[in-house]
Amino acid sequence: MTELRKTRMSTARRLARRASYDRETVHAILDAGLIAHVGHVVDGRPVVIPTAYWREGDHVYWHGSSKARMLRTLEAGAPACLEVTLLDALVVARSAFHKSVNFRSVVLFGTPFKVEDPDEKREKLRAFVERVYPGRWDALRPVTRQELKATTVLGMAIDEGSAKVRTGGPVDDDADYALPIWAGTIPVRTVLGRPVDDGRLAPGTGRAPRVRL
Amino acid sequence: MTELRKTRMSTARRLARRASYDRETVHAILDAGLIAHVGHVVDGRPVVIPTAYWREGDHVYWHGSSKARMLRTLEAGAPACLEVTLLDALVVARSAFHKSVNFRSVVLFGTPFKVEDPDEKREKLRAFVERVYPGRWDALRPVTRQELKATTVLGMAIDEGSAKVRTGGPVDDDADYALPIWAGTIPVRTVLGRPVDDGRLAPGTGRAPRVRL
Repeated sequence: MTELRKTRMSTARRLARRASYDRETVHAILDAGLIAHVGHVVDGRPVVIPTAYWREGDHVYWHGSSKARMLRTLEAGAPACLEVTLLDALVVARSAFHKSVNFRSVVLFGTPFKVEDPDEKREKLRAFVERVYPGRWDALRPVTRQELKATTVLGMAIDEGSAKVRTGGPVDDDADYALPIWAGTIPVRTVLGRPVDDGRLAPGTGRAPRVRL
Repeated sequence: MTELRKTRMSTARRLARRASYDRETVHAILDAGLIAHVGHVVDGRPVVIPTAYWREGDHVYWHGSSKARMLRTLEAGAPACLEVTLLDALVVARSAFHKSVNFRSVVLFGTPFKVEDPDEKREKLRAFVERVYPGRWDALRPVTRQELKATTVLGMAIDEGSAKVRTGGPVDDDADYALPIWAGTIPVRTVLGRPVDDGRLAPGTGRAPRVRL
């Protein structure tokens, strides 16, 4: 399947030209992000919790303490919405009305499932570590059975949802182009700083891991 | 009031030592962000939509097309959750279990209200423009009545909610400090690139606006 399901929920009504249901587009955005915003419903009220996440094939995964409320609510079979947004630029227009931002976002709807099997759980965590720190998993102290037990891993199919992407400069009213007002884009980027060790490295320790963010 | 309301919804259960209900902390995090993730409920299902937002006093505001579904749902008096998260660092530990991230986040619960009065709406948009581009409002082509009509501005009291902050290095198991595995933090920052004009500047146009992000 190369497209996500277009449902009443997932079909963009506003600015439909910026929406995409293309799986490649959705995957690329998901792979470029690290923090997702997971919505769920508690007593009829919406709750949004940030979490790190990762993608494997046609699924997204996230994890946390098995005591966390969000995870406990969702592992019981409740509907979720997972949203990821990457800010690419401020779009500066000649009027307040046309100011905007360039961004890439994905909104997914679904019902998460819990990864129960300890070996599968370990493989999921491995995929997460390798996604952020390629090659690091095997260098780490192995995960214990106790730690696996204390960790909940949730998955959700990438099935119902959409991507939205804005690129390019401002779109001003025709008459406004005559005004001597600066307009254009100001790029926004996320950058990594120099690694700072924790001051407790054992003798013979190598360098900081490579990060893919 | 110097603290946010602690309710069943807003009281952190997990890692309560990282939670704060202090208004100054909450305001400082809100003022450092630009994109919020707004949760609402549609047909019993959670929906999370990213939006730019700003703070004025004890309220947060966001806006958009008066046709947007999220705004139409919320202006009708539905409960919302507004979440803002700033990623500060990757926390690299000696085991997968203790890896983490340093972050500052705010989760607010409430029922948004619509800013109806056109003059008040204009003042809110002014505050938003000035928050991101200090001094720019007066240089822009003035907002028209038609544009104000096409824009919905929602506000929500900063009342029920909490902040969560993680700082510092990894917290590894005692025995793991003897292992020759690199551990520490890798800072993550958001930076602005050099402004790129849209190639249609009128003669006599000055420089790109100052940005406060």
